[in-house]
Amino acid sequence: MQPVKIGILGLGTVGGGTVEVLIKNSTEIAARTGRDIVIHSVANLDDKCLKKLKLSTVKFSKDVFDVINDSQIDIIVELIGGTDLAKKCVIGALEAGKHIVTANKALIAIHGNEIFSLAQKKGLTVSFEAAVAGGIPIIKAMREGLSANKILSIAGIINGTGNFILSKMAEENVKFADALKQAQDLGYAESDPTFDVEGIDAAHKLCIMSSIAFGIKLQFDKVYTEGISAIKPDDVKHAKQLGYVIKHLGIAKQDKNGVQMRVHPTLIPDNKLLSNVDGVMNAVLIQSDALGESLYYGAGAGAHPTASAVVADIIDVARVLTSDPKNRVPHLAFQPNKLQNTTILAIEQITSSYYINLQVIDEAGVLAQISKILSDKNISIEAVIQHDTKNPQPQVPLIILTRQVKERFMDEALTKIAKLSTVHSYNRIRCEQLGD
Amino acid sequence: MQPVKIGILGLGTVGGGTVEVLIKNSTEIAARTGRDIVIHSVANLDDKCLKKLKLSTVKFSKDVFDVINDSQIDIIVELIGGTDLAKKCVIGALEAGKHIVTANKALIAIHGNEIFSLAQKKGLTVSFEAAVAGGIPIIKAMREGLSANKILSIAGIINGTGNFILSKMAEENVKFADALKQAQDLGYAESDPTFDVEGIDAAHKLCIMSSIAFGIKLQFDKVYTEGISAIKPDDVKHAKQLGYVIKHLGIAKQDKNGVQMRVHPTLIPDNKLLSNVDGVMNAVLIQSDALGESLYYGAGAGAHPTASAVVADIIDVARVLTSDPKNRVPHLAFQPNKLQNTTILAIEQITSSYYINLQVIDEAGVLAQISKILSDKNISIEAVIQHDTKNPQPQVPLIILTRQVKERFMDEALTKIAKLSTVHSYNRIRCEQLGD
Repeated sequence: MQPVKIGILGLGTVGGGTVEVLIKNSTEIAARTGRDIVIHSVANLDDKCLKKLKLSTVKFSKDVFDVINDSQIDIIVELIGGTDLAKKCVIGALEAGKHIVTANKALIAIHGNEIFSLAQKKGLTVSFEAAVAGGIPIIKAMREGLSANKILSIAGIINGTGNFILSKMAEENVKFADALKQAQDLGYAESDPTFDVEGIDAAHKLCIMSSIAFGIKLQFDKVYTEGISAIKPDDVKHAKQLGYVIKHLGIAKQDKNGVQMRVHPTLIPDNKLLSNVDGVMNAVLIQSDALGESLYYGAGAGAHPTASAVVADIIDVARVLTSDPKNRVPHLAFQPNKLQNTTILAIEQITSSYYINLQVIDEAGVLAQISKILSDKNISIEAVIQHDTKNPQPQVPLIILTRQVKERFMDEALTKIAKLSTVHSYNRIRCEQLGD
Repeated sequence: MQPVKIGILGLGTVGGGTVEVLIKNSTEIAARTGRDIVIHSVANLDDKCLKKLKLSTVKFSKDVFDVINDSQIDIIVELIGGTDLAKKCVIGALEAGKHIVTANKALIAIHGNEIFSLAQKKGLTVSFEAAVAGGIPIIKAMREGLSANKILSIAGIINGTGNFILSKMAEENVKFADALKQAQDLGYAESDPTFDVEGIDAAHKLCIMSSIAFGIKLQFDKVYTEGISAIKPDDVKHAKQLGYVIKHLGIAKQDKNGVQMRVHPTLIPDNKLLSNVDGVMNAVLIQSDALGESLYYGAGAGAHPTASAVVADIIDVARVLTSDPKNRVPHLAFQPNKLQNTTILAIEQITSSYYINLQVIDEAGVLAQISKILSDKNISIEAVIQHDTKNPQPQVPLIILTRQVKERFMDEALTKIAKLSTVHSYNRIRCEQLGD
């Protein structure tokens, strides 16, 4: 068969990794695909990396549109990142009749509806396996592997930087700031770590997975997002005493009231597989009606793991180049005309159990005051930790784990609790049992 | 689009589950696939289940060939099991121009080469996701998700019955026979459990995964197979003391010497995710060059989990009905003319570390004798457990964990050790670090 010709936009970490994997494994890739995948042209801001990447003989331009408009190219591989130029490139390439492979989670989460709509109209495919959980084939698993199932819920560790930080805090009993510094020193976190530690990156990925799971349009603005910077070593320690581990999870669920999409620190039972996913690794736990619980684990970032997904997408697109567009896997798993206008629940409407770390004055009756407020809101207490303090201290921690309650009632109770003269401050973290 | 018409052969556990999932989730399935999947006809030994499965209006026959030769059917779903009639059905259906979906691991492992060759000649697809690890989309992950990778090794818990037994032995400190009895009482094990506990079922699955991983023909007769019936509660206990868990693993690796395929009890470090996969659950750990370590976890058996994979295959086949056969995913991941004649290593040629549980006479100098024999064969000792016995006993356990050594040398050493007058008996189990 004819080789498939690709044009790559962006030769940064993922672009470089993609070139390396395509060259290193070209024999296996051709033996699997039944045809060669040829890097026909590349665009990058500078040409310094071309020699290192063994691309000296490949057509090069600093202008992405030279590649996009090259009539010989079958597939444009967008690895620029960001949402401005990347969007122009993808729209331009679709207009020029090119299929797209991208690793760009922000682009898909924010502009995916528009992009998929155009692709659909043009009979083209936009593949984005690398946008979620790096090299883990989670998009494929959800769209194709679980296609017989109603998907009920997703819980994923989908940001390696955040997971590295929380793992370090748990293993070494260090503060958030110190764990972040380690992540930065090792190159796992950017100098401005906001996207990772505040959950924005995870929210992009959760938004994409939710659409594929529940057959809804991409609605990034409706993902509730809470970061991990307020987690304290004490929270990690108390969680452990209660039999839990704190992870930064992306959680999506569908029930009769609607769809929940939320990224926040979460206590999960320490006997679940997900609680043993440490360091920069990612994992996604899916509950679905036919299969039950399934979990997908692997590297969620890095040049070669991400390239693994990018190249798998290139091979997939190469396979459907000659196919009837109607028979391809739909971008968001469901046929575009079958996407539902399901209600997306506000965070106040969700139900969860809660870990509450209260700083209280060390005197008799405090727990009784707090219990009364919780009880008035019908909030049951699952566990309490009160430490005997040997030396009298102005404040002591009081840890409460509640049973399931609607978040609105929890908020109302906490507002009252915060007003107690015996309560100095509090920190609350949601808690999930993760099925079973 | 036109509905896809399927014919189902066999309405046992998996056949019944497949019908139930197709009916229960028909709306979602049609919304994903873009067309209805219609059960056009079924064959079964008796018609008692038709009413229960809401199939009263579906064409029924006791003769599978009535379904196979029905000209209206696009896809034959073979869920009979076994290798005799099932093979006749699949060959007959291919001859009649029908695509195949099957959950039959024995059929694929033993007759897959012949079946795929015929399918290839006819331009037809044989899908078999449900044959390996039940509902976990592991075939899809390996054939498509990891298509950019050289796969280096596989280690899988791929028999739920065996894993249930070993989990029970570890949790409740019971004997193999008692754990097997529990598995039988719960319906997890057959009254004749040979296929499961002796590793034959796992060997079928490993054979299939190995071909897909390494691009070799199916060679079931070359899979080394060892069961779990000789594992004793003491082994489980000693393994734990050493920081390991005993699992019945299917292991396949490719290195410069060739491919290894082996199913046997294995000590694995207790901090690896795989060691936390308990009960009837399955999981497959894959090492590949671009992605690194990835793991896939879920239900490896049961009516609905297996149906999840069967129906996903039906949807996949529906999608490629109109596609160019050359552009489909090859049955064994690699194009048929690219399969390699890689050497399959005999078990004596593998390298492993070993746990040895020796029953020795409780007297001075025994460890020295044994150490000398190991050292003469260049076998290093990683750890030793000798228990102080309060009451003199005729025999005491001596536990040795070795470093990596070629199995042939280990066998030679053990033959010598067994001849020592101080050694009563021994049991040895291979030990794997599982990467990192």
